[in-house]
Amino acid sequence: LLVARAGLGTINHTFLSWYYMKSMGLEPIGIVMNGFEGKDVSERTNPLIIGELTGLKPLEIPKVEGLILPSEYRNLLAELVGF
Amino acid sequence: LLVARAGLGTINHTFLSWYYMKSMGLEPIGIVMNGFEGKDVSERTNPLIIGELTGLKPLEIPKVEGLILPSEYRNLLAELVGF
Repeated sequence: LLVARAGLGTINHTFLSWYYMKSMGLEPIGIVMNGFEGKDVSERTNPLIIGELTGLKPLEIPKVEGLILPSEYRNLLAELVGF
Repeated sequence: LLVARAGLGTINHTFLSWYYMKSMGLEPIGIVMNGFEGKDVSERTNPLIIGELTGLKPLEIPKVEGLILPSEYRNLLAELVGF
């Protein structure tokens, strides 16, 4: 599971990490865009572009206060990793 | 020629970019660590670690005021790229 930042600059890092995982024989089961706020254009378009580059549809996880993710997103994450 | 930031966080980005260049059939002729200030431990140890990972000895270019690099560093860059 590749967890990436949601904001500006993440396309390059996410793609290169995904590429290296695959090169090393690891098959990524999903990509999480973490800390999503949707404030700027890059945040809103990053998932689409990363999806096109990798063939994986990134799961956007919003920025939350504290350490506990709302159950809605915990469920989506569990689904993504197959639990 | 791969130009990277000198500071904290650059090892991962530089290595992955170097790896991808090679994967795409581009042979990097050198690595430049740009904006070197040498202030923290990571800046001082990054070139060594990146050198070990890539087999290329990074050229450290200091942070300068303005757009013109001192001739000493222009010469080192020219040497690096074979001019």
